[in-house]
Parts: sequence; C-alpha cells; structure tokens
Amino acid sequence: MEITTIAVIGAGNLGSRIALRAALSGFSVNIYDISQDKLKQAKSIMSQVLENHNDFKNLSIKYLNNLTFTVDLDHALSEADLVSENVTEDLEVKKRVWEAIGNLAEPHTLFTTNTSYLLPSDFAEISGRPSLFCAFHFHDVFESRVVDIMPHPGTAPEVLEILEEFGRTLHQVPLIVQKEHSGYIFNTLLISWIDAAGRLLTGEIAEVEAIDKSWMVNFNMPVGPFGVLDKVGLDTAWKITSARRNPASRAFAELLKHYVDQGKLGVKSGEGFYSYPDPSYKSPDFLR
Amino acid sequence: MEITTIAVIGAGNLGSRIALRAALSGFSVNIYDISQDKLKQAKSIMSQVLENHNDFKNLSIKYLNNLTFTVDLDHALSEADLVSENVTEDLEVKKRVWEAIGNLAEPHTLFTTNTSYLLPSDFAEISGRPSLFCAFHFHDVFESRVVDIMPHPGTAPEVLEILEEFGRTLHQVPLIVQKEHSGYIFNTLLISWIDAAGRLLTGEIAEVEAIDKSWMVNFNMPVGPFGVLDKVGLDTAWKITSARRNPASRAFAELLKHYVDQGKLGVKSGEGFYSYPDPSYKSPDFLR
Repeated sequence: MEITTIAVIGAGNLGSRIALRAALSGFSVNIYDISQDKLKQAKSIMSQVLENHNDFKNLSIKYLNNLTFTVDLDHALSEADLVSENVTEDLEVKKRVWEAIGNLAEPHTLFTTNTSYLLPSDFAEISGRPSLFCAFHFHDVFESRVVDIMPHPGTAPEVLEILEEFGRTLHQVPLIVQKEHSGYIFNTLLISWIDAAGRLLTGEIAEVEAIDKSWMVNFNMPVGPFGVLDKVGLDTAWKITSARRNPASRAFAELLKHYVDQGKLGVKSGEGFYSYPDPSYKSPDFLR
Repeated sequence: MEITTIAVIGAGNLGSRIALRAALSGFSVNIYDISQDKLKQAKSIMSQVLENHNDFKNLSIKYLNNLTFTVDLDHALSEADLVSENVTEDLEVKKRVWEAIGNLAEPHTLFTTNTSYLLPSDFAEISGRPSLFCAFHFHDVFESRVVDIMPHPGTAPEVLEILEEFGRTLHQVPLIVQKEHSGYIFNTLLISWIDAAGRLLTGEIAEVEAIDKSWMVNFNMPVGPFGVLDKVGLDTAWKITSARRNPASRAFAELLKHYVDQGKLGVKSGEGFYSYPDPSYKSPDFLR
C-alpha cells in the first residue's frame, strides 16, 4: 500500500514533531487535538524545531501547505492511510481514543501507537482492527532518530515492512522489536545502566562525578549517567525508578525524590546532579 | 613523600604498559617477572605501544634508560617508592607475591595492587603493611586513561592523595572508589548494560544489530553493547557473565559459551557477534 496521508492524533511535543517531520518528508498531514489552544502550542513547537535546525531555518510552518490543524477527529482521519496516536500515557484515555478512531477511520488505515511503556495489545482489540495495529515509537524525531516497530501477536507481518519503509522515509532508523516488551529496546539498556549508577551512588561506592568520569573516559562519551539523568529530568527519572521493585532501585528512587522535592529537576530547572547552564562535566578540566 | 622509583611486579600486558607510561613520565622503573622470556615479551609489548602512538613514534625502548628489566625481586624492589603489582588474577598467587614483597621492600614503599576483581583487603595484612596498601587499578593506560584508587578500611587517608597526584602524573584520570567494591566503578556500569543487552537478545526481544543501533543512534556512539563485547573478547565476557547468578545472565552466559565453543571470540578471532575486520556496525549504511 502507498502512504500519502497521515493523521497525527495528539499534538503534544512528540506528536507535533512527528507531524512536522512527515510534512517535511512530503506527506499530507492532519494533526488533531481537543482544543485550538493545543493546536496553537503545536505550531509554536514546530516553529521552534524549524528555527533550531540549520537545514530548515528558512522554512516557516505557514508555508507547509500539507499540514492541516483540526479539532475535528473525523476530519483528521478522513483519507488517512496511517494514524500515529500520541495522546497522554494513560491506559483508559488511550483506550477511549482508540475506540473512537476505530469507529471513524477508513477501512484500510494502519493504526500505530507511540506509547512509551504500554503495549499495542492493550489497544489492538478495542480499535477494532488488530491485524493493522502496531506500536510505532519515536524517540525525539530530530535529535534521536530511532523509531521502534513493535507488533502484538495479531499484527499482520506486512505491516512491519510498510512501517520500516515509512520510518526510513521520515529519516528515522527503524528497529524491529520482535515481541511485546514494555520500554522497547533502548529504555531497557538505559534503565539498567542508570540503575547501576544509582547503586554505586546510594551504596556510597563513588560520587556522581567519579561515576560519570568512568564512563566518559572509557567510552570517550561527552556525558555519563548522571548527566543523562539531568537531561531526562529527575522528575521523570523518579517516576520510572520508583516503579522498580529491587531494594537498590528503591534507595535511588528515594534519593531522586529528595532532589525533586527541592525543585532540582535537572537541566530544565537549572539544577540537578550538576548546575546549569555550565555543568562541571562540560568543562575542559573535568577529565583530568 | 616524593615518588621517583617505581617497581612494577608482573610484566604482562598491563604491567608492561604501566611501566612504559611511568618511564615516559620520567620515573625510574624496575620491571620484574619470573623469566627472561616474560621480560622479552614485555619489551615487545612496549615497542608495539610506542609504534602505535604518534606521540612516541620516534622513541625506542632502548633509549628509555630509566627502565630496568629484572628477574630478581629484591633488585626490583630496592629504592622503590611505590609497587604496582600486576601478577595473575588468582587469590593464592597474589597472596604469595605480596608476602614476598612485604619481606623485601623498604619500609616507606607504598603498596598498590592492580587486581581486576579481588579486593585490597585480601592482601593488605599478608603484605605486612596494611596502612600503605591500596588498589590502584589501570584500565588500558594509553587508550582508556582511567585509574581507580580504592582503599580498604585500613588504608591511610594520605595514601589516596599521593596516588591521585601520581595518577595525574601518569596522564590518567584518577577516580576515588570510596569503599571496597569488586569491579570498581566502570565494570559495574558496563556489566549491567551488557546484562540488559543479553536479556533482550536471549529473550528474543530484538536482534544484535537492532540492540546496538538503539544505543548508537540515541547516544551518537560509534559502538553498541555487542560491538563492545566483541572487543572485550567473548571468552572473557563468558567468564564474567557465568559468575552471575540471575537466570537471565545465566541464559546469556550459555549463549556466550556457544560462541566460544565454536572459536568465535570476537575481534581477536575474526568472528563474534560481528565479522572482522569489517563489522557491519562500522559501515556507513548501518544507521539507516
């Protein structure tokens, strides 16, 4: 099948970036959210992305004629060959949205969810179209160009091929996740790595800077685990870590909570494990 | 105290590199091993390092007058201000060596062990000099310039300061490990990361290349966990993984054993998770 029209449902940070990327790649894109305010925010997110990227600096979203902003779900879905659902990460909200999409979309439309931790099988049945349902999970679209393609047991195999090709058209690196796994591939690696860093810190084996240095020097990396946590946001890191059950993770979750309670959220609040905008790990003297 | 003379005990790969680095930094270095053959190998390791590094290309070890090669332990230790012990990673062998060093060294000599997984407290008492005993653990000396400084509870605090300064003189990044911890800092991070990659593979969540790509794209890294394993050597990786107790690590250890049994040891055998000398992950097409 040929994909020409995309419906992006949910115009938050990631939805807006996906819609913009698809429009820049020449697709016709309908982007939906529940209010004009949300759509206004989406336009401002898109303008920001265009400004921040040299390749697109001379573009303006008003010239991107293939972008349609709408609060009418039916309108958003009309003629759509593929839906990318980006609504809030809540099982019940997503279920309601998928039931609505299933009732309105054309019979051939592919259904994809951009869920972070839930599974496609959570929504495949309620969408009424399990064989055309798959997770299609973006990381950041413009900086981290990975898209995970994760089927549930009922996804038709040809859907994976179509999504792989479509992902490449969006300048992403498509990664096949062979079976359902919460957090896909990267987050599994990332969380284990962060957990180990947390254990070293809460176990008083080493301090933040020594832990980061060990990784940065050995792998010639510009950042270590605590620098990454500051970027992710300590509030988000706390949510993820506190869901884990082992005692070491719980101790680290408590430490993260302590930072969050003090308003230290990482880069976005100006303070986390490091102080911003000039964290010590970026200083030329750090690795000596 | 001023450090001018170093005794390197054990002239294997790492001992040779430490001795060479100290000689290049202007220290007087006695390097000891049990046979002339071992010392000859050490010279050839050193020549290789000099050839491989542009900074040292015009140097030859025969001009490094401050290097003394000896099979006489007493001679090696005479006038030494610091001992770096690099003998085989075996508790009993290291104990015998430390007992001998303790009997022969001058009273002021600092004692350091370069053990990978054992602890300084395993040898501090038998050396007869616990307060001057500390782990001083190099990674590669020339490529990975990290040196871990890990005291046991009886190490005198001033020893840490001396080693920190001495480590910098050797162009290393000194990292303080605040208390004894097998594997220091980096290996704790590395093993958790590798474990997670192993779980994704043996759990059939994703294939080798997808797992590596997820890390390489998201962190803009030239290599992912399986590329790293191939560099480490699958035999070494198998030894480390098989010592771990959780079921997922055991499953991964079995997979590694399967590779090792087939002679697939990674880079050094020409085949591991990738084929060498041109592994797919180094191809410009890999990240698409």
